[in-house]
Amino acid sequence: MSNNIRVAVLGTGQMGSGMLKLILEKQGLELVGACDTRNDGFETRSFTTPNGSIDVGIYNNLDAMLKEAKPHIVLQATCSKVSEAEADIHTLVKNGINVISIAEEMSFPAAESPELGKAINKAALENGVTVLGTGINPGFVLDLLAITLSGVCYKVESITAKRVNDLSPYGPTVLNSQGVGITPEAFRAGVEDGSIVGHFGFPQSIGMIAKALGWKIDKIEQNREPIVSDCERQSDFVKILPGMTAGCNHTATAYMDGKPVITLIHPQQVHPHMGNVTTGDYIEIKGEPDIKISGSPEIPGGVGTTALAVNMIPRVMNAAPGLKSMIDLPIPAAIMGDARTIGTI
Amino acid sequence: MSNNIRVAVLGTGQMGSGMLKLILEKQGLELVGACDTRNDGFETRSFTTPNGSIDVGIYNNLDAMLKEAKPHIVLQATCSKVSEAEADIHTLVKNGINVISIAEEMSFPAAESPELGKAINKAALENGVTVLGTGINPGFVLDLLAITLSGVCYKVESITAKRVNDLSPYGPTVLNSQGVGITPEAFRAGVEDGSIVGHFGFPQSIGMIAKALGWKIDKIEQNREPIVSDCERQSDFVKILPGMTAGCNHTATAYMDGKPVITLIHPQQVHPHMGNVTTGDYIEIKGEPDIKISGSPEIPGGVGTTALAVNMIPRVMNAAPGLKSMIDLPIPAAIMGDARTIGTI
Repeated sequence: MSNNIRVAVLGTGQMGSGMLKLILEKQGLELVGACDTRNDGFETRSFTTPNGSIDVGIYNNLDAMLKEAKPHIVLQATCSKVSEAEADIHTLVKNGINVISIAEEMSFPAAESPELGKAINKAALENGVTVLGTGINPGFVLDLLAITLSGVCYKVESITAKRVNDLSPYGPTVLNSQGVGITPEAFRAGVEDGSIVGHFGFPQSIGMIAKALGWKIDKIEQNREPIVSDCERQSDFVKILPGMTAGCNHTATAYMDGKPVITLIHPQQVHPHMGNVTTGDYIEIKGEPDIKISGSPEIPGGVGTTALAVNMIPRVMNAAPGLKSMIDLPIPAAIMGDARTIGTI
Repeated sequence: MSNNIRVAVLGTGQMGSGMLKLILEKQGLELVGACDTRNDGFETRSFTTPNGSIDVGIYNNLDAMLKEAKPHIVLQATCSKVSEAEADIHTLVKNGINVISIAEEMSFPAAESPELGKAINKAALENGVTVLGTGINPGFVLDLLAITLSGVCYKVESITAKRVNDLSPYGPTVLNSQGVGITPEAFRAGVEDGSIVGHFGFPQSIGMIAKALGWKIDKIEQNREPIVSDCERQSDFVKILPGMTAGCNHTATAYMDGKPVITLIHPQQVHPHMGNVTTGDYIEIKGEPDIKISGSPEIPGGVGTTALAVNMIPRVMNAAPGLKSMIDLPIPAAIMGDARTIGTI
């Protein structure tokens, strides 16, 4: 056995498959297997790499994968909630394996699942391993970047972060959860009954910012408004007629002592340019001094999440045990050298 | 004695004085003293705070300050080079005191003073304390931000970071080192004889980026060009006639395998708007995906450096012992709550 970092992936959907390919490109990482419980049985998948074709075993049972693949670290790309992620995480932790999860709620479990988070932290400490939640958002754009920028401030009065992106690449699951292609009335009914959720992760981003700065948040208000198209828009997955919804403008405001201190704005729609909307990421800090940065177009979400999960591997391998968020570890960086020596003194 | 973090400051110039005021504003930090060896003897300086007037002892001798003020951590704002900073750092470390230095070279000692850096690291490890170098640049804009953004990339081909700022607030020392107010010929002669240095910190920023990504840099080329004014410009400290220099356009390029991979561009001049130049910070990553962000005007340098030094106190207090750079510790964040509980699990 070489001294590579042995990595496995849970989930072989769009995110998990992207991770598999990226791991194969990184020096010092060895892709030892993957697991997808939706499969009927064990299969192998061939990947073309600069060093020739590589066969990777895709297990449909986590225990079998652990026994045969013996990973040091597992990337989890199967779900969004802590309650959905925790069983596999506990299995991994008990086996002495580090975990990086892209489940949105895992980016900051204290926000909505504090008890489950504490149990994961306890298990990670007992087993001497590190568990990290990461992703583009929550985990990077609307929280980590804003926090980092606040470091140059004497004081911060408020933080406003905005991410404007395009839903065109996304399939039915995402489009339905964003309420795309329906009447504004149906959109409002969907928000009311909880079937239209918009962005998943505002409480986590707010929790990260508040913890990093030392703010005590009293309450969080979220609002989901339909983005109504005045023209016909079409993607591979949906056709939107004029007057129908092209997406959801989801916002969250966090209050401290009755004053809004964190405002997160995340309008997502199909073909924003057809509504004369430019995509991008925007962070504005009101304080001493004011700070304003922006980037357009937005950092691509799928690539960003996949990259962060893989790029954080050296940071997690070198971290102290426990449940961590992105504010607890050194900054992310693209792995462009040997992952075994990055982040070591 | 309360359980506040006891902080002292070395140097009471513009940066050190800014730190003194900021420390007094932060809950959980206690300003226990300062030291300035340029003073004739001990003096006290009064500061007005929301909790009334506070007298702070300014010693002119480090040993006396340590004996009487008993700091847990000292912020060093006295110099630019590791060779100038190391004596006081060793004194502090031997006394079991953590250090944050804004000496530019201390942001990444391995770049130009690797042996001195190793000695500081060894002493810090032996004495169980942490030493960090930080500042706006090197330490944040042209390195930390670019590295953080690379975390969302599958791969990075090159990083270009640019900081355009205004020298108008700066006094004679900075203006002379930037070659302001002279003929282009005198500027070129000053670059040649080393009296005009431009920006101080490119090798450190390049070293941080390369270490974080795992790049092996072959060589660094630096270039300093005069910025010639075509109009009269005046600040509190200099009058620039048409045809004379308003500043220095200092650039650095780092090569790997013969190809430029890091380009840092830092034109600094008096009243850039009079040359139709907009100030700002700009980061561009070529890779997969390309990333581009910008902010205008630039993050103010003096405030940013002062804020980072103070805001990193909780991170340094919670860090493992040794010599650290900004890529080794969790991200900076403005201290807006109790500094004693920020960054703890």
